[in-house]
Amino acid sequence: MALYSIIDHFIPLQDDRLLEIADRLDPKLHHTQVLPVSVCRADGEEISPEKMLLPEALPAMELKHGESVCLDFGDHQTGYLTLDLDFAGSHPDAPAHICLQFAEHLQEFTENSAEYKGWVSGSWIQEEKVHIDVLPARLALPRRYAFRYLKLTVLDTSPKYRLVIRGAECDAVSSADDTDLSACAPADPELKQIWKICVRTLHDCMQSVFEDGPKRDRRLWMGDLRLQALANYCTFRNLDLVKRCLYLFGGTRFPDGRVSACLFTEPRVEADDTCMFDYMLFYPVVLEEYLAEKEKEGADRETLQDLYGIAQQQIDLALAQVDADGIVHGDRLGTVFIDWAPGLNKDGCAQAVLIYAIDYAVRLAVRKGDKERAAVLREKQALLKQAARKVFWEEKEQCFSSGGQKALATQVWMVLARVASPEEACRIFDRAEEFNRECGMMTPYMHHYFVTALLSCGRKEEALAHIRWYWGSMAKAGADTCFETWVPEDPKASPYGGSVVNSYCHAWSCTPAYLLPVWFPEA
Amino acid sequence: MALYSIIDHFIPLQDDRLLEIADRLDPKLHHTQVLPVSVCRADGEEISPEKMLLPEALPAMELKHGESVCLDFGDHQTGYLTLDLDFAGSHPDAPAHICLQFAEHLQEFTENSAEYKGWVSGSWIQEEKVHIDVLPARLALPRRYAFRYLKLTVLDTSPKYRLVIRGAECDAVSSADDTDLSACAPADPELKQIWKICVRTLHDCMQSVFEDGPKRDRRLWMGDLRLQALANYCTFRNLDLVKRCLYLFGGTRFPDGRVSACLFTEPRVEADDTCMFDYMLFYPVVLEEYLAEKEKEGADRETLQDLYGIAQQQIDLALAQVDADGIVHGDRLGTVFIDWAPGLNKDGCAQAVLIYAIDYAVRLAVRKGDKERAAVLREKQALLKQAARKVFWEEKEQCFSSGGQKALATQVWMVLARVASPEEACRIFDRAEEFNRECGMMTPYMHHYFVTALLSCGRKEEALAHIRWYWGSMAKAGADTCFETWVPEDPKASPYGGSVVNSYCHAWSCTPAYLLPVWFPEA
Repeated sequence: MALYSIIDHFIPLQDDRLLEIADRLDPKLHHTQVLPVSVCRADGEEISPEKMLLPEALPAMELKHGESVCLDFGDHQTGYLTLDLDFAGSHPDAPAHICLQFAEHLQEFTENSAEYKGWVSGSWIQEEKVHIDVLPARLALPRRYAFRYLKLTVLDTSPKYRLVIRGAECDAVSSADDTDLSACAPADPELKQIWKICVRTLHDCMQSVFEDGPKRDRRLWMGDLRLQALANYCTFRNLDLVKRCLYLFGGTRFPDGRVSACLFTEPRVEADDTCMFDYMLFYPVVLEEYLAEKEKEGADRETLQDLYGIAQQQIDLALAQVDADGIVHGDRLGTVFIDWAPGLNKDGCAQAVLIYAIDYAVRLAVRKGDKERAAVLREKQALLKQAARKVFWEEKEQCFSSGGQKALATQVWMVLARVASPEEACRIFDRAEEFNRECGMMTPYMHHYFVTALLSCGRKEEALAHIRWYWGSMAKAGADTCFETWVPEDPKASPYGGSVVNSYCHAWSCTPAYLLPVWFPEA
Repeated sequence: MALYSIIDHFIPLQDDRLLEIADRLDPKLHHTQVLPVSVCRADGEEISPEKMLLPEALPAMELKHGESVCLDFGDHQTGYLTLDLDFAGSHPDAPAHICLQFAEHLQEFTENSAEYKGWVSGSWIQEEKVHIDVLPARLALPRRYAFRYLKLTVLDTSPKYRLVIRGAECDAVSSADDTDLSACAPADPELKQIWKICVRTLHDCMQSVFEDGPKRDRRLWMGDLRLQALANYCTFRNLDLVKRCLYLFGGTRFPDGRVSACLFTEPRVEADDTCMFDYMLFYPVVLEEYLAEKEKEGADRETLQDLYGIAQQQIDLALAQVDADGIVHGDRLGTVFIDWAPGLNKDGCAQAVLIYAIDYAVRLAVRKGDKERAAVLREKQALLKQAARKVFWEEKEQCFSSGGQKALATQVWMVLARVASPEEACRIFDRAEEFNRECGMMTPYMHHYFVTALLSCGRKEEALAHIRWYWGSMAKAGADTCFETWVPEDPKASPYGGSVVNSYCHAWSCTPAYLLPVWFPEA
């Protein structure tokens, strides 16, 4: 996720008690030493797997001015790089000036970072220029990177010496337990590959919080958390990390109580001054799903007690933006995100997400024994559904339309909110291709909701076929981890104005790690 | 100095005993905390003293994408930079990517480092690009820089925040004692300014060895050491540092015993595989001058004992390259440097430098009580002078010519070697301008020898006028320290193919700190 708003003099509401509980749940990071599995010279443009040699070949690849090597660490890593550098030839008489480029996907090396002019900061591009005064040197870079490939280019030596890389090592970090999960993998080889990519994605995004992506934005987003938590329950089952994130979001909010779209943990925990309507409404969803999951191990009354009020507050804040016609104006509270698809009209989706979130708020009320609240919510939900039906349902066309647009996302969310009857819903997806042409989907995040909408109508085979096609095409495009944004027909699509800042390990895209074991245990 | 040769599989002769003595003399570095004295925005091209504000203005100069500030530390510094960085606006949602450029002279900021294509490594350009993940941050750069000015440019933030510089500090280092030397300064204001610049230059080049320049090459060169030692005797009088350097040069040499043109001290002491004929011959010169200076405080028999053989060996190695015609072929042992003046024929100079060095070797022999050696050397010297007279003296033209060229440098060295009679020598400098036109001088290093040649003929007034004009023009060009290379008519001249790698604090240029007090105590 990457989206921003700017509020002057924003001072978040801080709840120190909640933040202390979150702090106590700060996970220990597991460290794994990872060495390159293959290397190649990269002086030209193209780096291809066929050119790769065993890493033992590395020290002999002596590098002169302008020359490059590429190191392949075998799989996506989130971690710290250390290089053992040396020289060949005469004693160095000038510093070595090197450029280090980190890539999650080889495509990143084909892009010129200097040409990027998008709206997301170019500072996310993982590229460092370093001077080394004394050789041999052990160069331990202080920043964390997300990468499988490292390209080292010698910007300058002197004619007296060549740079030699004696060794390279990644100290990979994750708060995911390194339990071997392969026994849970689907048997079908194609699905197994998809599942593997998804699990690796989640693993590399699980740090001291669930990060959206370890390359960018490296932080906790509410809507992303919802999908990460689901995948986590079926894989690493680090329930405390979900709890920690819920306490963080609860502990630092907008002054009016809204849960922020994302938050920072460094140098101290602080809500971003960005609110997203749909993201805010996922707070009760994640809380309810966490408690349901936790219940399998024994109830967690404290968390319900601590966070119930905040979860219900999100619904109330949204309900306050419902006008007399029963339609919510989500954009008064923050951006309605839904998906990066250009031109998507989001009014219908906003209404549907609120109805959807109330389902979870009701369950929370029931769990809390708050019958009155449950009844009120059910009533409000019914009115919202009625209004949605009235405003967005096209009787003649038998589908939903928002602002005159029959986007696939609108159908998906209305189905998930059960604004359509089961029969209507099922028929809608007969025409998925038609809605997709009108306004399609850009992110695996949205594709997840499409798949769950298909599943909610019992279109299981189609749901599996979609996973196989969509995530499978990502795998075929060389994914080791799930891409943040993916349009199979347009592999370089980016919502940011340049794919060089795209994240190729983004946990909102990893939900087949949840969908496959839960819905297709037989696959 | 910067010049190189490459010898495959070069293994220097190491004398551990000498290197241990050198190591014991490794000086303590003095640290001085230096704060900026003024600051200005530097978004456009020009930074001029008139635009500078008090440093208190710095934190208010909030920097967006592409914006710059310039900090002036008041004088040339050799040291380490620490910045206190912060932000204004919303919590940073992306790293700050900054570029730091260090300049000894403002001219460096007008040069585009990316365009430099010279033969000296561009890695000497003092420019760093750094990502800062968390703000506020205390950024302590690990490398040492030579600078008065710092330019910080924000390559990228995000629209959510501006970068703020709360403070900046230089931890300046030098092995020169911070004694106030101003009482020794000439009274004449112009000369005082020249003297001040020279003393600062020496101060900032005195580190764990006498470095040629703290920007480039940051190491000990033999010919540079000769002039640094002279200036040191009249200023900081760190005699142990000269002794240390003599032991270093003695302790790591060419396998045949030649003193290397320069040496490295990191990661361990090691001679460079570059020999320069004239530089090698300065070893007995520096040793003799050190002992003479040391004698004022009490004799240093150990150093004479330890290094005498090495000093005499340099002469013998050179004499072995004298052919039957009595002319030395210096280039068989290494480059003959003399000066960077393009097209200079160096045959005559090489002959003269050998004759000149023998003077010092004779004095060493006398000091050692080695009468036989002294006698042999005097005899050899006489033959060399005869041959020089025969081959290089143009009776008709009453000047010296080398390869058909009557360069000023050739006249200077022949006069210093006393190949001309005092009367001839004196008349030669009546025509200095003529020889200068034929082939002039490019470095203050060569200008020093020109001045001493004038002084050797008693042309004292002219010598002072030359100091006033040549070093004075450097001061007028904004020098805080002496430039490595300086042609007043061509301020951007560089022997390296681009002035961006020029050093603007080069100790071989600081000899007015010696010439003025010794030759013009009345000035």
